[in-house]
Order: sequence, then structure tokens, then C-alpha cells
Amino acid sequence: MKVIEGGVCAAKGFTANGIHCGIRKNHSKKDLTLVFSSVPASAAAVYTTNLVKGAPLTVTKNHLQDGIAQAVICNSGNANTCNANGIEIAEAMSVLAANHLGVTPDDIIVASTGVIGQPLSIDPIAAGLPALVAGLSVDGGKAAAEGIMTTDTVMKEVAVEFEIGGKVCRIGGIAKGSGMIHPNMATMLVFITTDCAITPAMLQKALSGDIANTFNMISIDGDTSTNDMVTVLANGLAGNEIITEENGDFAVFMQALNSVTVNLCRKIAGDGEGATKLLECKVTGGKNMDAAKTVAKSVICSSLLKAAMFGADANWGRVLCAIGYSGADVDVNKVDVSFRSDAGQVDVCKNGAGIPFSEEEAKQVLLQKEIEILVNLNDGEAASVAWGCDLTYDYVKINGDYRT
Amino acid sequence: MKVIEGGVCAAKGFTANGIHCGIRKNHSKKDLTLVFSSVPASAAAVYTTNLVKGAPLTVTKNHLQDGIAQAVICNSGNANTCNANGIEIAEAMSVLAANHLGVTPDDIIVASTGVIGQPLSIDPIAAGLPALVAGLSVDGGKAAAEGIMTTDTVMKEVAVEFEIGGKVCRIGGIAKGSGMIHPNMATMLVFITTDCAITPAMLQKALSGDIANTFNMISIDGDTSTNDMVTVLANGLAGNEIITEENGDFAVFMQALNSVTVNLCRKIAGDGEGATKLLECKVTGGKNMDAAKTVAKSVICSSLLKAAMFGADANWGRVLCAIGYSGADVDVNKVDVSFRSDAGQVDVCKNGAGIPFSEEEAKQVLLQKEIEILVNLNDGEAASVAWGCDLTYDYVKINGDYRT
Repeated sequence: MKVIEGGVCAAKGFTANGIHCGIRKNHSKKDLTLVFSSVPASAAAVYTTNLVKGAPLTVTKNHLQDGIAQAVICNSGNANTCNANGIEIAEAMSVLAANHLGVTPDDIIVASTGVIGQPLSIDPIAAGLPALVAGLSVDGGKAAAEGIMTTDTVMKEVAVEFEIGGKVCRIGGIAKGSGMIHPNMATMLVFITTDCAITPAMLQKALSGDIANTFNMISIDGDTSTNDMVTVLANGLAGNEIITEENGDFAVFMQALNSVTVNLCRKIAGDGEGATKLLECKVTGGKNMDAAKTVAKSVICSSLLKAAMFGADANWGRVLCAIGYSGADVDVNKVDVSFRSDAGQVDVCKNGAGIPFSEEEAKQVLLQKEIEILVNLNDGEAASVAWGCDLTYDYVKINGDYRT
Repeated sequence: MKVIEGGVCAAKGFTANGIHCGIRKNHSKKDLTLVFSSVPASAAAVYTTNLVKGAPLTVTKNHLQDGIAQAVICNSGNANTCNANGIEIAEAMSVLAANHLGVTPDDIIVASTGVIGQPLSIDPIAAGLPALVAGLSVDGGKAAAEGIMTTDTVMKEVAVEFEIGGKVCRIGGIAKGSGMIHPNMATMLVFITTDCAITPAMLQKALSGDIANTFNMISIDGDTSTNDMVTVLANGLAGNEIITEENGDFAVFMQALNSVTVNLCRKIAGDGEGATKLLECKVTGGKNMDAAKTVAKSVICSSLLKAAMFGADANWGRVLCAIGYSGADVDVNKVDVSFRSDAGQVDVCKNGAGIPFSEEEAKQVLLQKEIEILVNLNDGEAASVAWGCDLTYDYVKINGDYRT
């Protein structure tokens, strides 16, 4: 398996495009994205667990009942959530897209991201669709990735290539962050495409299995969005024997999918709102998987630790504190903590108590862009990783006046 | 019942003092506090639920087994937590204080607040104690309140006067915030004194009952501290018939205690690290108390909402979002939301969907120092209040480099 150029158009038979249609005020910002498979594809999705759900999620869930879809339409700038006519608008988006693409509305995945609770007009979408469809191309992946951005500072895409039964397969994906991210059994907006042949049921199994250790282990700010969704389209054009059970081919597919999702996780966390650093909390020695995951996520979610990381301050007491209140079954007197980055590793806590370390060395380690917080619970064999980012002035700035 | 001047020395028989002994580098900052009752007092306490517990909590818990105490000693600048010799140091603090006061170490409540994981030297405390004890006076309440401050910007004290059986009783208290505050069945440092006569068991019952609706309903940053503790000393010098059961006198006492704790809650939340505003989320119409409390706390804890309140942005979608992911049993399609302050009230959401409102009016409401977020779940009779503050640049600044 190797990482290749591209994103959502890397796999055979997929085209994409992204344009500015007028939902966002800034004309230089794309706000409407379309991803299209030349043939109907197996489709799988996971959704936010927030009780307040964006109208597009309800519509998409309905459309995916048969496990088949052929296109994704997504706007940014407005979440189409908590609006009285939200379902109607999301359905209208599907119908318009379907008509222009010559498919049925049932085969459309629809998504929205942006402000909650402001009516979304169908007009700019209707006006923009002809150009959006006309511009669909295999070179449109980047434009599609841009069309779903909100406060993201960078476009996020990735693709990998691998073989199943001698056939070359590809998986690619695009994602948007970057605030209101604390997925819980679902996640932010991620659209993945592959030409691998796999049944809808196995595709859903692969996706649901994967997100527990990937998108559900990211937190930017502890807020679980109303519009989180991850979808995968698998159109089978790679020509491999269709995956119908948990065999070796399925394992290869899972591994390839995981490399795409982990890559997008790191991109999303590293581009968290206002973030200057990617934080990875790597927990080992957990009594069980639940303990390891709970600790990793609690550490990544601590506002105090996130602020300390922004300041490159090796305030490891905040790591211990976050472990202590996590609710996980741990013996705090066994915990070791280290900080690691490209600049080296510094051990700061052994058996739950501080050990002498060079503050200067620690500062150098923490001044890097990617920081690993290593926690050994010394209590078993379970391991887990969670991703997050530092808490900065810019997070406050971005969210203090998001709507204007 | 009426609010009166003073704090921890308002009740008969209590003296206090606070000095700078040298734990904190800044000589203008007091760092050692003593509160003393002239006679042994009924004592009650609640402690953090964090598995990582400050050594002073372990020692205090041990000392309060008999329900009797006579003094509180507390240092700021160092939490004496995650230190190999923490228990030894906390015991030494008790012994030194007891010797100087002429009481037994078992009657000392000991507490510490500040940085975690840095060894605490007993030397400055030993050196400072003679002056600390010599300076005990009924006018020392403010100095005592100052001696427990860390990043607090204002000293926090309150006192009330009430009658039980014709006898005038008083309750007063001091508190320190102001970060790492997300109490969970316990709370930050709060020391309360009263001259009311009440048994240790009834005092504990009163305290434990009260905090569920007061200190446990505050959140500054979602981080549950390792050193949270609330204690009450009741020395009986008011001369009322001692409270031994849940009678009318107990109800009066509970009410007076509640007025002190709610006042301190508001002071702590309003002085959260970097805060410019006090946020009060008032939930009504809950299906049950659990739903009302869970919703109130989830709203108060949302980083996104806190940042919006800092920016005076009526982004009510974030209130809905926080209700949706709270885990509470609510029907999101019934929820009404309003913002209220001294500048008026603006209704922004009805039945889970946005309603037209004047952005200009909302801005004026949200520019005030105390903001009420009114949530009606329209699903029952349960009500709850939670307190918090906005998320600001200064929170990041304070916590980006707390140790230096």
C-alpha cells in the first residue's frame, strides 16, 4: 500500500467539483461541492450522535436505506440545522442534483456545514448547479475539498493505492474540520471514495469498525456537532472480486481505509480552530481498551493542558489531573508521562509523581508543531491514540464572532 | 435572613489571618491562610472526585473522622499534589499549626492550591506560622481570603445573618477559584464558618445536600481539580439549641447555608480565569431533575458558546447543539431559548427552531457583565441553574504559561 497524490477523484470513475454559488458572502470562498461516481456505488455512512441533527442527515439516512448512492452534494456556510424548512431544503438539494446528474434523488448523499439556525435558501444552489455539474472532472478533487471548508485553514485530502487479488484499488477522501469537533460514535464531514468492489453491508461494517479508533478519537473543543457525517462510496470499478465477508481482502481494505482515516484525523486535529500544534496522546499499558481510550480522550480534551501546550509549558500535572477525572479504571500511582516530538523525548512523571527534568529541553520538545503526549498506565496491554490541538487566542477570536 | 459584611470571621468565635510566607515568588501575594475557632467545632467536608487527590485532602479526611475540627490552614502557590512526600508535608503543616494554636493536629483541616507536581518545602510555612498565629483577629477575614487566591482576580467572601429559636446565627465563607474548575460531587476551595450549633452528622448532611445544586453546578473549563474541597466549621457559639435532626431549624440553616454557597458560586464563576462575564444557565421544564441539571451544565461547559458570549454573539445554535449532545433525555423540538441581562430579554429559539430577533438588541443584552441563558425544555417541571463564564484570550494567556 502506498500514499498517492489526490483525494476524492483518485479512485476510478469518480469526478468532482467545487464552486462559489453565493451562500458564503466572501466570493473567494467556495461553498458548494459535488462528488460523482459514473456508476451506482455501495454506500455507507455514520452520523453524529447529537440529538439535534442537521436536516441533511435525516435526508441522507433515508436515501441510504438501500445501501446505494452515486453522488455527494455538500454546501458550506450554512448547516441547514434548526430550521423549520430544513428537510424540505435538503430534499430540494437532492432533487436538483439528481436531475442535473440524471440519477434518482434517492442516490444522492446531501450534507451541509456552517452556521446553525439560519434559513438556507435553495436559490444560490439551484443557480450554481449547472456550472457545478458541467465542471465535474477527475481534476476536481481539490475544488471539492475547498467547497466544504468553513474555518479550516487548509484543504484536506488524501489517497492511497493497494492491491486486492492482483487488482489495483484506490481509496481517497476529503474532510472538513475544524471547530465543534468532538465526535461521539460519528464525526465531522468526511467523504471517502473507492473503486474497490465491496457490498454495502461490508462497507458499513468496515466504516463503523474504523471510526471507533479514528474519527471518534479526535477532539478540538469538546463540542459534538449537529452535522457530523462520514460517508464512503465504493463503485467497484477496480474490478476486484467483490468483498462479501470478513476475509483477507476485507482485512486489506480495512487497512487501506484506516490509513486514509488516520491521515485525515491528523489533518483535522492539526487544523483545529486556531490551532498551532497537533497533539497526539498515545496511551499504553491500559487495563482494558475502555480505560486506554477514556484516558487518551480525556487528556486531549483538557482545556488546561491544551493551553499549556500552546505555551510550550511542560505542565504535566494537568495530564495527571485529566487522567484522574477521566472516569477510567486506572491506578494513578502507576502512571508514567513523557512528552515527545521531533526535538526529542523528555520524561516528566514516573509512578504518578514528578521526576527531575530539564525545563529547557522540555521547552524545545514542546515548541515543535507535532507533540506526542505519552502515557503509560502500567496496568495491562491495551493501547489507544487520540488526536487534538492546542487552545489558542485564535480559537477564542474565531468563535467569539463566528457569524459576522 | 440578611447579607452582612464580612466572611469567615462573621460568626462568633472565629479569627483568621493571611500572610506572605514565601511559597509564591511575588512578595505582594499572600500565600498562607489560617482560620481558627476559639472552641472545637463540628466539621464537615466534601472532596474532589478526581482519582488524583492532593495529599492535603487525604490528611484532612483522616483528621475529620471524628467530625470535629478547630482550624483551617491553607497555602497557595503549590498544590502539594503528585509529590512523593506530599502526605508528610501536609501532616507537618498540621502539626506545626496545631502546636502554635495549642490544639491537637487531628483538629486541623489542611489544604493547598497551586501548581501540581512540584515539591512543597515546609520551611516557609514553618517560618511564617508564628506571625500568622500572632496576627489572628476578627478583622483577618479579608487577609485569609487573599491568602488562598491563585489566579483569582478578586477576593471572595460573603456572610449572612439569620435567627434560629430566637438566637442570632451567622454563616460566612471564603472561596478561591478560578481555573481547573468543573467540580464533580465536590468543588474548589471553600471554607465556611458558622456559630450555629449543629451536630457533625447534620452539618455533613447539610453540606452534601447543598453542593449538589451549588458548587457542583459551576464549570470554568471542564477540568476537575485534584485539590477541590469545601469545609464548614460550626462552633455553636450562637447558643441556639443544637440541631440534631431534619427539623425546622435545620431547614433555616440549610437556607442560610445555600445563600452563602450560591453567592460564592456566582463569585467564583464570574471570576473564572480570564472571564469578562458571569454566565447563568437557567433551565426550566425538564422532564426530571437529571435532565434539567445535565442540560444546564452542558450549556455552561460549551467552549463554543463561551467564546460566543465573550464576543456578545447571540449564536443560540450553540446552545441547542450543547443540549443535543448533553446526553439528557430531552425533546429538542420543544426547546425554547432566550438571552437575558440587565439590558433586557431577547427570545431567539422556539420549539427547537430559530425565530426572528433583532441582532442589535441581542448584542446589547450580551454586552452586559451578567448573562442569563434561559432554556425551557417544555417537557416537565424540573428546574436547575448552572454557573460559568465566557472563554477569552486571557484564559489562554493565563494557562499557556501558568508555571512561570
